[in-house]
Amino acid sequence: MTDYSRFLSPTGRQLHESAIRRMGTVVARTTDLVSFAAGYPDPASFPWDDVREIANELLSGRDGSVLQYGPTRGYTPLLETILGVLEARGIRTTLENVAITSGSQQGLDLISRVLISPGDVVLVELPAYTGAISAFKNMQAQLVGVTQDIDGINLEDLDAVCDRERRAGKRVNLLYLVPNFQNPTGALLSLEKRVRLLEWAERRDVLIVEDDPYGALYFDDAASEPETRPMRADDRHGRVIYLSTFSKTLAPGFRVGWMVAPAALAERFETAKQSVDLMTGSLDQRIIHEAVVRGVLPRLAPGLRELYRGKRDVMEAALRRELGDRLSWPVARGGFFLWVKLPEGADDNTVLARALEQRLVFVIGSAFYVDGTGHDRIRLSFSAPPPERIEEGVRRLAGILKPVSV
Amino acid sequence: MTDYSRFLSPTGRQLHESAIRRMGTVVARTTDLVSFAAGYPDPASFPWDDVREIANELLSGRDGSVLQYGPTRGYTPLLETILGVLEARGIRTTLENVAITSGSQQGLDLISRVLISPGDVVLVELPAYTGAISAFKNMQAQLVGVTQDIDGINLEDLDAVCDRERRAGKRVNLLYLVPNFQNPTGALLSLEKRVRLLEWAERRDVLIVEDDPYGALYFDDAASEPETRPMRADDRHGRVIYLSTFSKTLAPGFRVGWMVAPAALAERFETAKQSVDLMTGSLDQRIIHEAVVRGVLPRLAPGLRELYRGKRDVMEAALRRELGDRLSWPVARGGFFLWVKLPEGADDNTVLARALEQRLVFVIGSAFYVDGTGHDRIRLSFSAPPPERIEEGVRRLAGILKPVSV
Repeated sequence: MTDYSRFLSPTGRQLHESAIRRMGTVVARTTDLVSFAAGYPDPASFPWDDVREIANELLSGRDGSVLQYGPTRGYTPLLETILGVLEARGIRTTLENVAITSGSQQGLDLISRVLISPGDVVLVELPAYTGAISAFKNMQAQLVGVTQDIDGINLEDLDAVCDRERRAGKRVNLLYLVPNFQNPTGALLSLEKRVRLLEWAERRDVLIVEDDPYGALYFDDAASEPETRPMRADDRHGRVIYLSTFSKTLAPGFRVGWMVAPAALAERFETAKQSVDLMTGSLDQRIIHEAVVRGVLPRLAPGLRELYRGKRDVMEAALRRELGDRLSWPVARGGFFLWVKLPEGADDNTVLARALEQRLVFVIGSAFYVDGTGHDRIRLSFSAPPPERIEEGVRRLAGILKPVSV
Repeated sequence: MTDYSRFLSPTGRQLHESAIRRMGTVVARTTDLVSFAAGYPDPASFPWDDVREIANELLSGRDGSVLQYGPTRGYTPLLETILGVLEARGIRTTLENVAITSGSQQGLDLISRVLISPGDVVLVELPAYTGAISAFKNMQAQLVGVTQDIDGINLEDLDAVCDRERRAGKRVNLLYLVPNFQNPTGALLSLEKRVRLLEWAERRDVLIVEDDPYGALYFDDAASEPETRPMRADDRHGRVIYLSTFSKTLAPGFRVGWMVAPAALAERFETAKQSVDLMTGSLDQRIIHEAVVRGVLPRLAPGLRELYRGKRDVMEAALRRELGDRLSWPVARGGFFLWVKLPEGADDNTVLARALEQRLVFVIGSAFYVDGTGHDRIRLSFSAPPPERIEEGVRRLAGILKPVSV
């Protein structure tokens, strides 16, 4: 029997496993499970008729390039329509700054490869999206957390942490943020802080990775479109690398995201992508392109906001009814998640273990913290399950948390 | 103006650009160009009707998971059908050994991350596939070349090179091979050498990366199916990581390849893939799965072999007619390429520069050599252009090479 561990690289030995993806495996195996784990969009919201019609036309065989290899940077007409999507968000840019990625996750990976040297400090929020944590850690970054307030990252703490790490001799080049409906907290970074962050990045000579999957999914009762204005829109000094995706608005099964970066970096990301996967799927890019051209995004968006706001309401009402005295959470102003504080003394791993026995799954809070804390929180995703399953899941959670203190 | 070079990681600074992908950009920009550059399959061979019909059924909306996130390891029914594809190639394995990749290129990238430490020696053939060279170099591997004979890698040289590098204190864990219709030489590794390589890998404690995109595309006049038997089929000691793809047999626009590896490594590759792109496209995987289930592969394969053999014949005949006294090449027994030796004293870069003026493009030989040689060769791909364009391209090549010595 060959022992393979001695063949592993440092990266191979220390791979960081995604807590969310691991939960996905549990979900696939268990029947009658309620999953509040992964941030899956609701498949009932996917534009099935549009996609079927578009695919049917594209696959007529008239244009061989639909199923052929294509440029690493992306299908040019899609890149052009993305310029329009960006402009609607206040971002004016040009083709040399944009690249298609195989989902936003690939954007995080390309950034890691091109910009992170082993041992570099990357600044992230406490808590932060686990997929970003994994991508950065797998390039042997040292992740250092910055506290968050209700309106996003704490700027005083940010500056103090950056200063402390640099004094300790660390290279600190990157700050990772999800300004719109942060994963997992749902926080919306205030417009004032966005402006101050751009100034801070210039003063401190740092690049900001602005990850924006949820910007279009604001809830009208608690947020408005102008409040989601990306930092990249006001980035006069080329400090922001902006990531977004069609996964939450069209469908995630198409692995199509994009990044906006200074041209010199976009060219590096493209070269890195050559050896990573050559290109993003041609058919996926074509379908997305046609969907955007046909106006599917603006047609869908109001319904999506209403759908997810409605599901948030169902989950909040159920939680208040069943566990209002034991749990608390900041208002979700958009996105897919409630970020729930457990009763005093409860531990996220213990609660999850008991939940799994009751066929309920969610993501433990500590998975989002790079400083080892967060055991007093859990992330509940309301986006995928139908309302009655949300209710059922909350009843199961209540069954665990109510009778005895955990 | 921000200077971004100081933000780059060692990887970001030293990224290895693909000569083939660069040529692809040239192709996209020039009109009336004949491209013998990239190994694109012929889009006329894609199973358009099958794919359209399958997509239409899948996109009815009955099964939401068609456009949803899915497991990183891959869509389980597709993994199961791949076990059948493998069995037809003599490889008996189980689900825990198989993983879907976003094209074979991603397999090379995952191997690089999980198994290559910076400074490691990776053994490759002289010449070798550029996409593998890029993937390994981007993990800061040191690539060391091994000579090839007409029947594949030279085993005496292989052993001597491995020994020499280890004596020099290098870690030598990996040998990369394309046994079937090698890219770029078209060489078919003899069955005897395959057996001896497996013994050698066990004796020398090396893992073999067996990259097999072209195995199904043997030409009946010069090779037979039994001669393409993968080394993985006879790998009793778990020494082989096997890569293959649907890109050359169904269509490359679906980014769907797969890898077969010892379970302990497959699990590492899967974890690495989580942070690389979460998963391979769902719709792509579903379409491929249905195509395989419906028997499209065995139905297409004989026609593909005939198609590409016919194109090889067209190119060979034209080359013999126009340049028979000036060029030579080993017989292409399968695959997509002729590996052409230039006239004495000609240089690949010079010939390419003159070819581009005549709207003809191919890949320079030296791009495939990790030792700086190969300037006396060019790789001509006959797979994509229609016969009359192959003829036209060869006439252009003759116009360059005939009148004056280059």
